[in-house]
Amino acid sequence: MNEKTLKEEIIYKGKILNLKKVDVLLDTGVESVREIVEHKGAVAIVVFKENKFLFVKQYRKAFDEILTEIPAGKLEEGENPYDCALRELEEETGYIAEDMELMQIIYPTPGFCTEKIYLYNASKIKKGNVRFDVDEDLTSEWIEKKEVIRMVSNGDIKDGKTIIGVVLYTLLL
Amino acid sequence: MNEKTLKEEIIYKGKILNLKKVDVLLDTGVESVREIVEHKGAVAIVVFKENKFLFVKQYRKAFDEILTEIPAGKLEEGENPYDCALRELEEETGYIAEDMELMQIIYPTPGFCTEKIYLYNASKIKKGNVRFDVDEDLTSEWIEKKEVIRMVSNGDIKDGKTIIGVVLYTLLL
Repeated sequence: MNEKTLKEEIIYKGKILNLKKVDVLLDTGVESVREIVEHKGAVAIVVFKENKFLFVKQYRKAFDEILTEIPAGKLEEGENPYDCALRELEEETGYIAEDMELMQIIYPTPGFCTEKIYLYNASKIKKGNVRFDVDEDLTSEWIEKKEVIRMVSNGDIKDGKTIIGVVLYTLLL
Repeated sequence: MNEKTLKEEIIYKGKILNLKKVDVLLDTGVESVREIVEHKGAVAIVVFKENKFLFVKQYRKAFDEILTEIPAGKLEEGENPYDCALRELEEETGYIAEDMELMQIIYPTPGFCTEKIYLYNASKIKKGNVRFDVDEDLTSEWIEKKEVIRMVSNGDIKDGKTIIGVVLYTLLL
């Protein structure tokens, strides 16, 4: 199973993503077009302490909704995922992780996007300083594990990386 | 928390997605740009029978990798998610669901994309006919639950909707 690239066309080069159109030849002999969003990748951090998970509430323009998500952020050019996770956690929540473990590397939408999310678990944290990006506006919140599982099962938590983070943590650790 | 639209520009209208650039004004007074991928949405189906989950193996151009995923597919214009799930399950695996339950509606990448994934659980299935889309090339496979949990925890299963489907099924049902 493979798809050979026949032609590639860059449609758009942007701030957080690029878009390209790729003409491909399948092993079956069929030709098709793949629209591929190029994304630098992101990190997300599961923080669990005293039976509570740490979340941020953030407005998301794509849905015109305020979503409950685990702390997360995009990789900067050349940035190491671990350093990015440390930075984003402190920027968004004011906590500094003293140690983090890579739980999983997730492909959230492999059908059309190259984004990988590096999912970390920060087991030991201490107080630092909240410093949002200039175009971020969010609040952080601790929620009891039992309530989090209820929010996942009834659909109050909709964000993919957040569901994966809390459910994997609950199931595997 | 809100972001007012100041200007919207359509960059690209495509086969499976559109791209737009939106100038926004945050409640904090800051102006920013959001790059938003518009996507019609998708379905994914968890099938569990005799202690095994049903998967498809499919080449994904975005990663140049063959991924293990639960059966899934994109909504056609105006299509009901339930009908889409029925259709995609039979097309990709040859099984007809006699009943399906909506487990969850997931936002896989709310930071930049409008895609919603309707996640179903098909509890009763019977044999139908495999009929791939002309530009699809995939194989289906049953895998034991214990092996699936191992594949999720060691990173052999990377696809977001697949991790959510099998882990939520295992944790909640």
